[in-house]
Amino acid sequence: MAVAGFEIPALLPVKGCQLGATFADIKGVKPAKVVRDDVVVLRFAPGSSVAGVFTKNAFCAAPVTLCREYLGGAVEAFVINAGNANACTGDQGLSHAKQTCQAAADIAGVKPHQIMPFSTGVIGEPLPVSRLTTALPKAWETLSEDNWLRAARGIMTTDTRPKGVSKTLIIDGKTVTITGISKGAGMIKPNMATMLGYVVTDATIAQPLLQSILSRAADKSFNRITVDGDTSTNDSCMLVATGGSGCAEIASEDDANYPVIAQAITEVLMQLAHAIVADAEGATKFVAINVQQGETSKESLRVAYAVAHSPLVKTALFACDPNWGRIVAAIGYAGVQGLDASKVNVFLGDVQIVANGARAASYTEEAGQKVMDQDRITITIELARGSAEETVWTSDFSHEYVTINAEYRS
Amino acid sequence: MAVAGFEIPALLPVKGCQLGATFADIKGVKPAKVVRDDVVVLRFAPGSSVAGVFTKNAFCAAPVTLCREYLGGAVEAFVINAGNANACTGDQGLSHAKQTCQAAADIAGVKPHQIMPFSTGVIGEPLPVSRLTTALPKAWETLSEDNWLRAARGIMTTDTRPKGVSKTLIIDGKTVTITGISKGAGMIKPNMATMLGYVVTDATIAQPLLQSILSRAADKSFNRITVDGDTSTNDSCMLVATGGSGCAEIASEDDANYPVIAQAITEVLMQLAHAIVADAEGATKFVAINVQQGETSKESLRVAYAVAHSPLVKTALFACDPNWGRIVAAIGYAGVQGLDASKVNVFLGDVQIVANGARAASYTEEAGQKVMDQDRITITIELARGSAEETVWTSDFSHEYVTINAEYRS
Repeated sequence: MAVAGFEIPALLPVKGCQLGATFADIKGVKPAKVVRDDVVVLRFAPGSSVAGVFTKNAFCAAPVTLCREYLGGAVEAFVINAGNANACTGDQGLSHAKQTCQAAADIAGVKPHQIMPFSTGVIGEPLPVSRLTTALPKAWETLSEDNWLRAARGIMTTDTRPKGVSKTLIIDGKTVTITGISKGAGMIKPNMATMLGYVVTDATIAQPLLQSILSRAADKSFNRITVDGDTSTNDSCMLVATGGSGCAEIASEDDANYPVIAQAITEVLMQLAHAIVADAEGATKFVAINVQQGETSKESLRVAYAVAHSPLVKTALFACDPNWGRIVAAIGYAGVQGLDASKVNVFLGDVQIVANGARAASYTEEAGQKVMDQDRITITIELARGSAEETVWTSDFSHEYVTINAEYRS
Repeated sequence: MAVAGFEIPALLPVKGCQLGATFADIKGVKPAKVVRDDVVVLRFAPGSSVAGVFTKNAFCAAPVTLCREYLGGAVEAFVINAGNANACTGDQGLSHAKQTCQAAADIAGVKPHQIMPFSTGVIGEPLPVSRLTTALPKAWETLSEDNWLRAARGIMTTDTRPKGVSKTLIIDGKTVTITGISKGAGMIKPNMATMLGYVVTDATIAQPLLQSILSRAADKSFNRITVDGDTSTNDSCMLVATGGSGCAEIASEDDANYPVIAQAITEVLMQLAHAIVADAEGATKFVAINVQQGETSKESLRVAYAVAHSPLVKTALFACDPNWGRIVAAIGYAGVQGLDASKVNVFLGDVQIVANGARAASYTEEAGQKVMDQDRITITIELARGSAEETVWTSDFSHEYVTINAEYRS
């Protein structure tokens, strides 16, 4: 199940970025049920700038540890495997991640620290590193600029569909392309939880500026989506600028082209993030929770997350039940000090359901029902305390959510 | 569905407390599907001490507002209705709660502020107050000291079974009885979320001391259980001492009888709280999460709640899947500053699953599975930071949880 309208469009090649994929049976299904790519390689032109943001989970996975270490160096390739997270695997896990980098470096003719490893899948199982390294040459053979869709498919785990988006813009008379792919279908929440995102542009952007663009864009996109409130050990979102378009380097926020490229990259990240929510495990609804009139951004976010994480709100959304009492209860326990409940307004789409803390006189169950029956729903909350506004995106909890998460390992 | 082994035992009468119940069709089902008591009255001997703790939700319900106001006065009766929460009902809701008190006061021959009202059920619908007040005389006619089980049943909403416990002890050569009942089956969490608890003893205890006993006992029981992380607008837990046993008044912590009665009351509250978890919506597991070696109680609690609230852990529990990676991920994002993941240990029952942040060498899937197959599971987490220990109790997320919460209003 997944919310309609978020299907992957055609993905445009980006000059200076080749992609490859192969099947290595990382999950170790015997006999392998489905032969589906589970190893993906991204190869960048030498001199590409690479930026990254990573999980804040105290138990970060071995590959994340290496990526953090290698960030800022002359990275030329990403090796991504699905089926095993190589997380909570101790020293052995770190050794496995290093072996992966070494094997890829040998093929690419670069140093191991020029390869960044990424893993997604079950936590705590040893990575079958020899199956991975054995498969790497095959992945390398498939490298092509036209392989974005295959790569998008290869990084999937419980995702029901690949996720990606492309955008073009003109900078200095040259066409610049941005293409990104993402994966993640549950365990999604602020701080990049359980998702991988790879966005590549052929613009030329200096690394420090690229990192700043990514950090801000991630904060408005991947850090504002939540499915079940869990953050994973492996989340990573990478932004690469290959310079393949041949346009002049953008190195500072004072560059006239900075706002244009930053905005376009942010939009790509938002679309990738929304696609993750729309394909959340068992999702039937795509829900925006917009909190206005907070005293601070922090309290607006607190309220938005309290509503977004409430299993009672999420099951009501699944049931298409305009049970606004559950929304109001979640606002009430969000922990906003001194919140005056008698001033709070709540809207379901355009329909006001709560006026001054009680059911709006104009509200009818029919009007609420009409909004709830839609696939995309916006819940707007006015706190009457200030002007801070925040939006987070989430999905509902369905029977299928329980099924998927109860059966993921079997 | 409910975890076995928590069935209600025989409940002992408490001198000075009479209970009555009747059906008032508060929910307004037409035609009423099941004629089940939904109005309950507790009547106390004049001079009883009454203590209470209430929800911290900013949207507290009208009856909670009145209870807070009346606390400390000469309260002589409780009127409880199921089927409608009278929450987020604005001035009309407050007026309905006051009408309820007035009607009960007229019957009992006392003042309205000597009656405390309680409501549980759907939020935001007007309380059908005339059906309630019309039914009150009938409830009064049934008043009897032997009516505890009927009262326990009358306060149920989505509960699958009534909850109660009795305990006796000897004070000054006299037998003292403590009997309590509770309700709540979902939306349960710290700060008394969506539950009602009524504990009555025939000991004689001064009100300020009674309040202090209740606050501490609630903190170790009702404030340490969580099902879905939502706190309700109506949660209330009341403790009444009627003095009916004729034993000497206990008025200070220096009284030799204080620790004895305080301990017994705490045990009653813990049993009532655990019964709520074991009957949580769709629960198949009763899970204790014990966090040891925290630097502070606060951080131990944070970790315990992060694990207890993780939908991924909860669905794994339902699936009897020893997916310790999900437990570790939840510990990692609990927000403990400077947590050294490489020192953390985790046990499932007696089986060590994580040693120093990675899978324990001795761990086998079979051993983990054996623990997960049990109805009652303890997860022990050692943080290696200090000596603060906290335990919270929770349940799993099943298909039935989604079904119940998606269909509660229909």
